[in-house]
Amino acid sequence: MKQHISGSAKLGKDVLLGFNTVICDDVIIGDYCQIGHNVVIHQGSRIGSHVRIDDNTIIGKKPLSSPRSIFKPPVELKPAEICDFCQIGANVIIYAQCSIGERNLIADLATIRENVSIGALNIIGRNVTIENFVEIGNRNKFETNSYITAYSKVEDYCFIAPCVATSNDNYMGRDKERFEHFKGVTIRTGGRIGVNSTVLPGKTIFEDGMVAAGSTVTKDVPPETIVVGSPAKPAGKVKEAQLLKNNLDK
Amino acid sequence: MKQHISGSAKLGKDVLLGFNTVICDDVIIGDYCQIGHNVVIHQGSRIGSHVRIDDNTIIGKKPLSSPRSIFKPPVELKPAEICDFCQIGANVIIYAQCSIGERNLIADLATIRENVSIGALNIIGRNVTIENFVEIGNRNKFETNSYITAYSKVEDYCFIAPCVATSNDNYMGRDKERFEHFKGVTIRTGGRIGVNSTVLPGKTIFEDGMVAAGSTVTKDVPPETIVVGSPAKPAGKVKEAQLLKNNLDK
Amino acid sequence: MKQHISGSAKLGKDVLLGFNTVICDDVIIGDYCQIGHNVVIHQGSRIGSHVRIDDNTIIGKKPLSSPRSIFKPPVELKPAEICDFCQIGANVIIYAQCSIGERNLIADLATIRENVSIGALNIIGRNVTIENFVEIGNRNKFETNSYITAYSKVEDYCFIAPCVATSNDNYMGRDKERFEHFKGVTIRTGGRIGVNSTVLPGKTIFEDGMVAAGSTVTKDVPPETIVVGSPAKPAGKVKEAQLLKNNLDK
Repeated sequence: MKQHISGSAKLGKDVLLGFNTVICDDVIIGDYCQIGHNVVIHQGSRIGSHVRIDDNTIIGKKPLSSPRSIFKPPVELKPAEICDFCQIGANVIIYAQCSIGERNLIADLATIRENVSIGALNIIGRNVTIENFVEIGNRNKFETNSYITAYSKVEDYCFIAPCVATSNDNYMGRDKERFEHFKGVTIRTGGRIGVNSTVLPGKTIFEDGMVAAGSTVTKDVPPETIVVGSPAKPAGKVKEAQLLKNNLDK
Repeated sequence: MKQHISGSAKLGKDVLLGFNTVICDDVIIGDYCQIGHNVVIHQGSRIGSHVRIDDNTIIGKKPLSSPRSIFKPPVELKPAEICDFCQIGANVIIYAQCSIGERNLIADLATIRENVSIGALNIIGRNVTIENFVEIGNRNKFETNSYITAYSKVEDYCFIAPCVATSNDNYMGRDKERFEHFKGVTIRTGGRIGVNSTVLPGKTIFEDGMVAAGSTVTKDVPPETIVVGSPAKPAGKVKEAQLLKNNLDK
Repeated sequence: MKQHISGSAKLGKDVLLGFNTVICDDVIIGDYCQIGHNVVIHQGSRIGSHVRIDDNTIIGKKPLSSPRSIFKPPVELKPAEICDFCQIGANVIIYAQCSIGERNLIADLATIRENVSIGALNIIGRNVTIENFVEIGNRNKFETNSYITAYSKVEDYCFIAPCVATSNDNYMGRDKERFEHFKGVTIRTGGRIGVNSTVLPGKTIFEDGMVAAGSTVTKDVPPETIVVGSPAKPAGKVKEAQLLKNNLDK
């Protein structure tokens, strides 16, 4: 078998398909797409035009559920939707019920869970995890290995450096009270987080706030403020030349 | 080729097999399993019944060995064994000579090395690494990207937050003396470690001990004690509502 | 289809090929190689002899490019080159225009980008990322999940512990001035970095310098000096028994 293409899938014109690719029932792929080798596109997924998907990538995966998971995935999931001009690397996993806007770059080994919505023109780096129930705006940059916990919100033009970690459960899995308090992180427009920093559950980085490398954020970060250390404390204001309003060309 | 199934493999009833799946010699798969696309199950692996294995996952991989590795893998390895009702994500790699009990959830991109034994009902998150010679009990939760170094032991009901790092070599690869001192970490029943914390070689988190987010653990953590900072120091007792004995329903 | 092998590819003698393997045009593979299942080797890649490549690995991948990336990949890339006796794990991604010397071990899920040169006898651990424009010498050890940012240099006999993070942009993506200041990290011969430490842009670990676990390196680390903390400060000299000159047998 060179490829498996379901009879109910619809492919646009000039779509290139690699070897061993599996296109399941009711998938729709737009014009001029390039699909790599060993790619799996699950049932009903919708891919725009001019999309590149590299080898071994999986689109439209259904969630697992442990008998011990607090979150039960819905029985019926909407298909994954990936809009025009996205570029998707190798070994990426994008779940069902996930909506990805135009012109995003999603690098190798990234995982994007169900119930995620992503705007346009983001760069999502290698091995980045976007957990379930996350909302992402436009023109953000998530660098290699950064981790966005469930129930988070990232607005626009944010910068998340490599290996940034976030969390959403201050109770570390104990005490029934925690179910009322699960909360991810919020990064408002222009917020930036330095390499290998940690942001605690429910914390907000306000507009143009900046977290220095290796810090642990235990309190909200005020607008245009640099915080440093563990726990992170205010250490000055963001330089004028680095404010978002002076960097809107990119 | 729709699939490759060795003539000596034994499949139970109602097993679903994805496209391009490779089932090698002497593999045994129980009843009602769902095996995804591009899955590779190496020689002799034993899979229980009602097991789900998602796309691109590899079961029974043989270790590599560098001319410079201190650990030489045995020539003869026992097959991988995965018990009933496990759910295994996509792009997971489970080595030969690895034993996994019932009802574990092992998420996408996790890697579980040889000479590992895992009990029942654990949740092993996305991109978690369980290195070789690790022993894991029951009902633990290892969150996304957490890293368990070789020669570690994790008992029961432990909570390892996202991006937790551990290590086993205080000598950082120098001094022959180190070969007598390799030691992973020990997490006793109910121990919990916060997001992006680091635990040094040979350290023990005692029963219900708790490490705050972003800490560096350089000394053992006493029972029911919270430690914070780098180096982590005791900062109080774990709240009664968070003790394991008050949370045994899950 | 058992495999796809281009008519213009040249395979040496006694090469073992797994199922579903895709060998593209003009690929050259030396004698006695073992290539796993679902492996993809892109156009023109050159593999030496006695090389082992495990399941699902991709060799010779072409870079993606976001409309917002600061780095534009060249249109014409040299093929990937992998020398004799390398051992390469599963789900590894090695880009085009990447040169890898003899007897390296590259573990599962590692990614090595374009414009990287790697010497001989290195151990590159699971899920390690070597970003673009990095130069690596000989006999280094990069442990699981460690991250080497673009424009870095690692000489010989260095030890990078698990989950080490590095970065190359002090400006966090703002201010045009940053384009003149991008700089990765430099690790001189015998330098060592502890588990989950962070090294800031442009910093150098000098010969036999050592960074303790969980530290944040904001200044250069002098030769044979141990630094600790966030920010990391000198805390003593490296023990005689751990100096490289006393450990050259390995």
